[in-house]
Amino acid sequence: MSGTDLERSIEDPSGPTIVLVEPQLGENIGMAARAMLNCGLVNLRLVNPREPWPNAKAVAAASGADRVLERATVHPTTADAVADLSHVYATTARPRYMTKRILTGSEAVAEMRRATAPVGILFGKEARGLHNDDVALADTIISVPLNPGFSSLNIAMAVLLVGHAWFLSNDQTAGERLAMPKETRLATKEELLGLFEHLEAELDRCGFLRDLDKRPIMVRNLRNLLGRAHLTEQEVRTLRGVITCLVFGGPAKGRRSDPFRQPDGGA
Amino acid sequence: MSGTDLERSIEDPSGPTIVLVEPQLGENIGMAARAMLNCGLVNLRLVNPREPWPNAKAVAAASGADRVLERATVHPTTADAVADLSHVYATTARPRYMTKRILTGSEAVAEMRRATAPVGILFGKEARGLHNDDVALADTIISVPLNPGFSSLNIAMAVLLVGHAWFLSNDQTAGERLAMPKETRLATKEELLGLFEHLEAELDRCGFLRDLDKRPIMVRNLRNLLGRAHLTEQEVRTLRGVITCLVFGGPAKGRRSDPFRQPDGGA
Repeated sequence: MSGTDLERSIEDPSGPTIVLVEPQLGENIGMAARAMLNCGLVNLRLVNPREPWPNAKAVAAASGADRVLERATVHPTTADAVADLSHVYATTARPRYMTKRILTGSEAVAEMRRATAPVGILFGKEARGLHNDDVALADTIISVPLNPGFSSLNIAMAVLLVGHAWFLSNDQTAGERLAMPKETRLATKEELLGLFEHLEAELDRCGFLRDLDKRPIMVRNLRNLLGRAHLTEQEVRTLRGVITCLVFGGPAKGRRSDPFRQPDGGA
Repeated sequence: MSGTDLERSIEDPSGPTIVLVEPQLGENIGMAARAMLNCGLVNLRLVNPREPWPNAKAVAAASGADRVLERATVHPTTADAVADLSHVYATTARPRYMTKRILTGSEAVAEMRRATAPVGILFGKEARGLHNDDVALADTIISVPLNPGFSSLNIAMAVLLVGHAWFLSNDQTAGERLAMPKETRLATKEELLGLFEHLEAELDRCGFLRDLDKRPIMVRNLRNLLGRAHLTEQEVRTLRGVITCLVFGGPAKGRRSDPFRQPDGGA
């Protein structure tokens, strides 16, 4: 999955602010920024990063999401980073001996979409997660369902899962589509019938359909089989060429000669 | 988000096989294995990896998902890697000038859950994605919706998004829960009413509710405000202690003395 075309970029400055609390490695900040832009998120805040900021390793790891890094702000404390937000979510998989509501990622992003004031999401440092004091600053815990026996996520992976839930919550992509080269289109029923009748005429001629009791069911099976392929107009023409070539494959195969064959041997 | 407890691990050997085609970096294979185990997937196949296998950098990056790496098999070609599978998905965001059905991640995993024979998912190499010939080997394309202007994903990130869609498609986690320390429970209505009446009696006494026209609405507001907090039994006791302490805060604050105060000064 790849593709970068900044003119088509969907970016949502009103989306949730991602707050990385005491991130340790520049690479992880960069990968988190890349994951954010993959999901259309652009508001990044860093609380007390361990390495100096700006950070060249973050830029390298961002793989082109530079402007998320350029917009990022650095804050001395989590309280400072969330000061202007009205609802704060904390991502954590660990029970913290405190009483607080927990939402799944999809439930949390649905709530964020309904929010009328700025919201933010806290992500803890790589090795330790969030401090209890940071979780206490949050209104709500986000706990993304994962294998309960192996739920340790890299910080950028955690940003991606929550960010992608955010992106999907407003995505209109059809669940199923058909990819197709621009210069073609699905075959019409008339074109398909032309193919079927061409094939059946040749199969009658070569004897494949000689059992007239079985002929109807064999024809139906062949039509169903080819119908399931959702052929394009181009593919119908290709298959008709295949049939013709098989039929008139040349005297070496002992088939009847092609009355339409050109003098140069082309079919 | 962290947590590793292999005894609680949910692993699904009947889940889809992840096929990494010509992966270039051991780190990425390791991160992909970690993402797989996060989502309960354990079947990994590598087609012609660039670095020797087994690979120490993969083990380091797997952060404990070693047994996914240990189970992994290496194959000379994509065709060899998918030979025993009955349906193959190819992950790609690029149109490939070919006619093939495209599913979103969630639609694809729903189909995989219904499958009665083994399925696999192809992921391309880091820089280039899948070859057209690999895509042609697949039955269906998976295209995970992402920012159309910035859809380039690290290979492990791509594995995580598809793997997590798979995990969520069979996850029963309630959208909203309340985290709570084991030793407590939500307060009963009787306990809450005891708190409300305690507070209101003290506010009557100190004059906060002296305007009898406004008293009913102020009482309702306070009860609503505290009700929204979904207090635990422990928290009700804490708040009653807070009220008592504020009321009997000591002569220095000019409040009335506590008739229950102990001789040693404790409230």
